[in-house]
Amino acid sequence: MATLTEFNLDETIAVLTRTPATLDALLRGLPASWVRSNEGRDTWSAFDIVGHLIVGERTDWMARARIILENGEARPFDPFDRFAQLKESQNKSLEQLLDDFARLRRENLAALQALNLQAKDFGRRGRHPALGVVTLSQLLATWAVHDLTHVHQLSRVMAHQYRDAVGPWSAYLGVLQCNGHSS
Amino acid sequence: MATLTEFNLDETIAVLTRTPATLDALLRGLPASWVRSNEGRDTWSAFDIVGHLIVGERTDWMARARIILENGEARPFDPFDRFAQLKESQNKSLEQLLDDFARLRRENLAALQALNLQAKDFGRRGRHPALGVVTLSQLLATWAVHDLTHVHQLSRVMAHQYRDAVGPWSAYLGVLQCNGHSS
Repeated sequence: MATLTEFNLDETIAVLTRTPATLDALLRGLPASWVRSNEGRDTWSAFDIVGHLIVGERTDWMARARIILENGEARPFDPFDRFAQLKESQNKSLEQLLDDFARLRRENLAALQALNLQAKDFGRRGRHPALGVVTLSQLLATWAVHDLTHVHQLSRVMAHQYRDAVGPWSAYLGVLQCNGHSS
Repeated sequence: MATLTEFNLDETIAVLTRTPATLDALLRGLPASWVRSNEGRDTWSAFDIVGHLIVGERTDWMARARIILENGEARPFDPFDRFAQLKESQNKSLEQLLDDFARLRRENLAALQALNLQAKDFGRRGRHPALGVVTLSQLLATWAVHDLTHVHQLSRVMAHQYRDAVGPWSAYLGVLQCNGHSS
């Protein structure tokens, strides 16, 4: 097993910075058959996933970082509403969502840089409403891996649309074996 | 279950066109800790995955489309060397690989468009060395889903590096539960 990477703020920001452009390159201008299709009842389309990432920018990541810095473990985080986007994205186009996500992420990363966090801050503790005690570095690492989990989901949701079209090759295409642990 | 999408050439090309820019946005300039790390012995890094996509452009997809059009089932496809990139990428930088992939994909999509395929061509048959009879539309759909399977793998390989760094949040991050069906 290779050694896992320890938390590093610059390397975390390197991932967080790239996600909006990655989703833009993958999704902008794609036909609706790819963007609006999901994996069946109560699952998310690419459109829903971008909406969910927007909700995280607005209500979750930096809000929780501030709670840790200002209140520590004394004040648990507010729960993350995993379904808010289903209402909030309703009258928007995918292109608007991609623009909103890019702008909010840029603003949040500027706010994160402005905190001027030092190594000694990374161990500061907060309280997750379900998981209990967590640290600031765990929160920031999770922000980046949360992006990756939705890239993972997005590729699976899109691939699913061609499950029949690929014929016998489905046996070789790992993404078609993924059992939806990223939803 | 939502209805699955039937093969459509333009919609397939819409995905194939976007993959180089997607990988470029995700990977170019990322620190080596993200790009060169893998999931352990005999697994692929982001660097290896881009190399593998290049081999596909050079030796697989369009070569097989031409075999179908010229030879039908009479001539089985050459097997796809899934490990060629481990030698071929050796002295290149990730940036070179991203440039090579973008150029080769552009050339291949131009060649595909030049074939001026019609609906009646999509059912033309070829012979896969292991899977048996396949059609041209299945080959082209697989080309697109193969891109998506490696985006899926890439997000998982990167997320793996922060498996420890996210602490208790690992329980919520689907990509960390993925068992590597995309490798």
